[in-house]
Amino acid sequence: MTDLHHGPVRPTAAAKPALCPVALADVAFEPESLFGQWQHRNATRTLPHCVKQLKASGALDNLRLVTGEKSGGFRNMWFADSDVHKTLEAAAWHLARQPGDATLAAFLDSTVALLAKAQGDDGYLNSYYTAVKPDRRWRELHRSHELYVAGHLFQAAVAAARAGVGSELLAVARRFADLLVDTFGAADGPDGLDGHPEVETALVELYRVTGHRPYLDLAGRMIDLRGRGLLNDERFDSAYLQDHVPVREAREVAGHAVRQLYLLAGVVDVAVETHDDELLAAARRLWDDAFGRKTYITGAHGSRHRDEAFGDPYELPADRAYAETCAAIASVQWNWRMLLATGESRFADELERALYNAVAGSTSLEGKRFSQSNPLHLRTGHDGSEEDAPSHRPPWHSRACCPPNLARLIASLHGYTTTTDHDGVQVHLYSAGTIRTEVDGSAVEITTRTDYPWHGRVELTVTASAPLTLSLRVPGWCTSTRVRVNGAPVDAVPRNGYLRLRRDWSAGATVVLDLDMPVRVVRPHPRIDAIRGCVALTRGPLVYCVEQADLPTDIVLEDVRIDPINPAITGLRGSPQALTVRGAVEPPPTDKLYTDAVPATSSPITFAAVPYFLWGNRTPGPMRVWMPTTTG
Amino acid sequence: MTDLHHGPVRPTAAAKPALCPVALADVAFEPESLFGQWQHRNATRTLPHCVKQLKASGALDNLRLVTGEKSGGFRNMWFADSDVHKTLEAAAWHLARQPGDATLAAFLDSTVALLAKAQGDDGYLNSYYTAVKPDRRWRELHRSHELYVAGHLFQAAVAAARAGVGSELLAVARRFADLLVDTFGAADGPDGLDGHPEVETALVELYRVTGHRPYLDLAGRMIDLRGRGLLNDERFDSAYLQDHVPVREAREVAGHAVRQLYLLAGVVDVAVETHDDELLAAARRLWDDAFGRKTYITGAHGSRHRDEAFGDPYELPADRAYAETCAAIASVQWNWRMLLATGESRFADELERALYNAVAGSTSLEGKRFSQSNPLHLRTGHDGSEEDAPSHRPPWHSRACCPPNLARLIASLHGYTTTTDHDGVQVHLYSAGTIRTEVDGSAVEITTRTDYPWHGRVELTVTASAPLTLSLRVPGWCTSTRVRVNGAPVDAVPRNGYLRLRRDWSAGATVVLDLDMPVRVVRPHPRIDAIRGCVALTRGPLVYCVEQADLPTDIVLEDVRIDPINPAITGLRGSPQALTVRGAVEPPPTDKLYTDAVPATSSPITFAAVPYFLWGNRTPGPMRVWMPTTTG
Repeated sequence: MTDLHHGPVRPTAAAKPALCPVALADVAFEPESLFGQWQHRNATRTLPHCVKQLKASGALDNLRLVTGEKSGGFRNMWFADSDVHKTLEAAAWHLARQPGDATLAAFLDSTVALLAKAQGDDGYLNSYYTAVKPDRRWRELHRSHELYVAGHLFQAAVAAARAGVGSELLAVARRFADLLVDTFGAADGPDGLDGHPEVETALVELYRVTGHRPYLDLAGRMIDLRGRGLLNDERFDSAYLQDHVPVREAREVAGHAVRQLYLLAGVVDVAVETHDDELLAAARRLWDDAFGRKTYITGAHGSRHRDEAFGDPYELPADRAYAETCAAIASVQWNWRMLLATGESRFADELERALYNAVAGSTSLEGKRFSQSNPLHLRTGHDGSEEDAPSHRPPWHSRACCPPNLARLIASLHGYTTTTDHDGVQVHLYSAGTIRTEVDGSAVEITTRTDYPWHGRVELTVTASAPLTLSLRVPGWCTSTRVRVNGAPVDAVPRNGYLRLRRDWSAGATVVLDLDMPVRVVRPHPRIDAIRGCVALTRGPLVYCVEQADLPTDIVLEDVRIDPINPAITGLRGSPQALTVRGAVEPPPTDKLYTDAVPATSSPITFAAVPYFLWGNRTPGPMRVWMPTTTG
Repeated sequence: MTDLHHGPVRPTAAAKPALCPVALADVAFEPESLFGQWQHRNATRTLPHCVKQLKASGALDNLRLVTGEKSGGFRNMWFADSDVHKTLEAAAWHLARQPGDATLAAFLDSTVALLAKAQGDDGYLNSYYTAVKPDRRWRELHRSHELYVAGHLFQAAVAAARAGVGSELLAVARRFADLLVDTFGAADGPDGLDGHPEVETALVELYRVTGHRPYLDLAGRMIDLRGRGLLNDERFDSAYLQDHVPVREAREVAGHAVRQLYLLAGVVDVAVETHDDELLAAARRLWDDAFGRKTYITGAHGSRHRDEAFGDPYELPADRAYAETCAAIASVQWNWRMLLATGESRFADELERALYNAVAGSTSLEGKRFSQSNPLHLRTGHDGSEEDAPSHRPPWHSRACCPPNLARLIASLHGYTTTTDHDGVQVHLYSAGTIRTEVDGSAVEITTRTDYPWHGRVELTVTASAPLTLSLRVPGWCTSTRVRVNGAPVDAVPRNGYLRLRRDWSAGATVVLDLDMPVRVVRPHPRIDAIRGCVALTRGPLVYCVEQADLPTDIVLEDVRIDPINPAITGLRGSPQALTVRGAVEPPPTDKLYTDAVPATSSPITFAAVPYFLWGNRTPGPMRVWMPTTTG
């Protein structure tokens, strides 16, 4: 298998994207690094927890209904097979890194065997439609999630193939994919279009692993069928189903955020593999809309709980944010593909923003509780309504899309850090660890020491057997950098978001990159009504928040203000994770809701701000990212 | 009938509330006054439109299914009988004022006859549960609306009795009410509690018309049964059903806003009639919560579309407001009862705020289109999602609770303006027109000339056969008043919100009250996040808004600012309805959603603001009540 040990997303040689991901095996994080800690937690807590929940929730037993190993009724959601597939994918990525994990290896092997046994002779594999609704197969694609579930099966199989584990899974996936091609692949045949996109990107990835062109063609066909009114649902509109406008004509992201973003990942995949500039231009246009008008500062998407949807331009309420975890994961996937396709750093910027904030904040410190909705504000006196934010992370969800999705992303996280092109290596995300890869057949080895994201210094020891360009991303939040090579300052300026150091590395060289990482006082675009008059504190890629837990008990979070001109940040506290902020407490001047009275007294206070991704790990209580200002 | 021609709400003599409403026949508006125009529009446009819609929607035919006059299926909502009852009530109030309206009189008579014919031998009257679900009668009160629908029947009958029309309707209502008493009246019998309160206030009113004490007792029992977990619904929580806490212990308004507010109207009715101070204290407590933490500046209630519910304290988003028309009407009813019970002007203030803004804004200028949700902000680029605001008023609704509710309120509006007590007359709402009533058996006649709410001068010519106190409300928004009697300045200061003029009026006297009515720049309570940094313009009782329709086409509403310190209002435009406001246009400084850039350029502009109640009568487009400031 030529593709062995390649990571998430692997454009074919024919695709010629701007950048090429390195193989997963080429990158390793230091255990002490934040990414290393996340992967360790994922491997030891989240992934075993997911496996346990698959058993408890009935997701595995549903497949055993089909094989005859169990009797009884179908349990859980009709798309619960996808929980199995996503957990399998996570396990595969994990096993590529830690093949000695016998427990997860056993889970993977037994589950692959179960799937193989549950698969129909024709290749169909879906426990709900086999066990409960056999006569409805393919007949309610607007809601059935059959192709969505198939897509996750394909992605699990791709991961297994690249990880060199569970070899039978690729065959299972191909049998099902072949059935899809036979059923929906003919231009003059039936139109197969799922109300929940996902299979598009999965089919392209399956094509990348197998080289079997019909998978790619089917993905392209599915993308071009959208926007023709093929999907109808009594409850949801066509934007929810991503069928409201042809993709090539779309000008705004709309509808269900996860569906829109998964679709866009597939759009870029097809565009890259088929050299379809029109399709890539559509993705760029939608990116400009999404990231210019509809993204939370945490990188989250989805302003509305209703329909889990994008909102109007600039409709970004902090408290009523839906901001689904899976949408943030989908954003990472979409931005990664955009980065590969174009080499433009803004995509890495948004990937990093989502990763460190919306994605990371969805998991509790101990790794076994997860939020589906990721609000930026929990109000004092919140009644717990779903219209607003959840005030805690539950251990599992009735629609458990997010936890195993987190597991598969974190398990493959090292695959999202580094790329190569004909000219050299690009480092997009910084973490202590090692990179050992090849550029045009020449070996490169990079050892990175850094405390990123807590500090902005990144030291890289580089050895390469041939001259090459080392490109180091300068994040969009960073306005000042310094570079030294072997101790000597280098007069390099970032070009398109990257510092590019071309030289002969054969003797080895040490690069010290200093990214200035001051605390920034960030203002919202003036059209974002919901957070007018507020600022947020960020430092490096991290968004900070203030929690009631860090305030004296007689001070209500709503009354705390930050001085936006001179926030008087006194620096990091004992832990590198908290900031000490100076501000004021301003009690309401009156009980009246509406008055012409101007606020009166205020008294100074210092308080802590913690990284957003760490919120909600102490006493549940109010939290806010956007803080009113003393001048507001 | 001692009660003849008495208006909405008529506490019994035994109740001894602070104030007593005058009879409807005692008050008449000048046709040219704003209230007079509203009543005329209601009589000539809205009410006939409602009658037409009752026919078109199937609501009348549903009753004919029961009488056997029609065959076929039930149409419309299961509580559609209430549309009939509310329209009947409106027609009754209207006919009291204009008995010569033959068309509406014929509608009323024929509909009363239809109801009498549709009523069961045992008194039960509900077309849905008779025609569709006879075996479910009383068995799903959490959702059936059977008592809610009965309540509207009783209110229609009370109106008819007070108007002296449709005499058979009171008998129909009493037969049904007697059945309720027989079924649910016994303390040790079955508990009757509707998921949608309404019948409580209606039963008290029916008691007031009939003197039949069991109706009052049943209302009291129903109130005290709440909060005991008697109602359960698979979809809605107990707050939605108003069953989450005993009324006497409640500290916060919660759940479905209309249900909560209707319940509170009934609570005050029972408290007043039974001298139950504890119950009245509960209503006061909930009032403080509702109007201190959960009311829009327009007087609207209901921050959430989901469950049509109140939100958390200070959760008052302008764009995602639900702000149901029926909740504003219910607020008028509750505040009116609180005013009668206590004589405190703050209740009249809130009644007036809701009336001139949330209620009035729900009807289109021509009187045949109505909004159910009344947002305070329509965003540029709004996609029309129900999560946010509707951008137009439809001619009818699938759940048509609001239009006939408006009709009954406006038809009886003169009944909400004036009260008496043993000492004199209180004028709460100002309108050109006449008041002819009695105080302690002595005749009083007041002729009012005023252009209120456009100007603050109110001239009253008063004649009374005995000395009495004329109490004139000084609205909460007014900080400066002048009074002259027969041309001579009077050194009167408002006491508890009223200027009280006691004298011998037997020779007649002219009172000129000047209420200063400057444009006010109103700031929100600092805990209302959604509108931080914004101000609203108000003048007198009117809240103003800015519509895109009044801006040059190259200026986006979102970029317009008001100077909050010196708004430089240049006075009224040609029409008394619009304000000319000076402000600035501030285009976004950058395309970036989040930046540390400070807004840059701004250019001066003057633009119009129109009363909120007139919004959306031109080209549909963006609108906002709360405007960002140049200093924000």
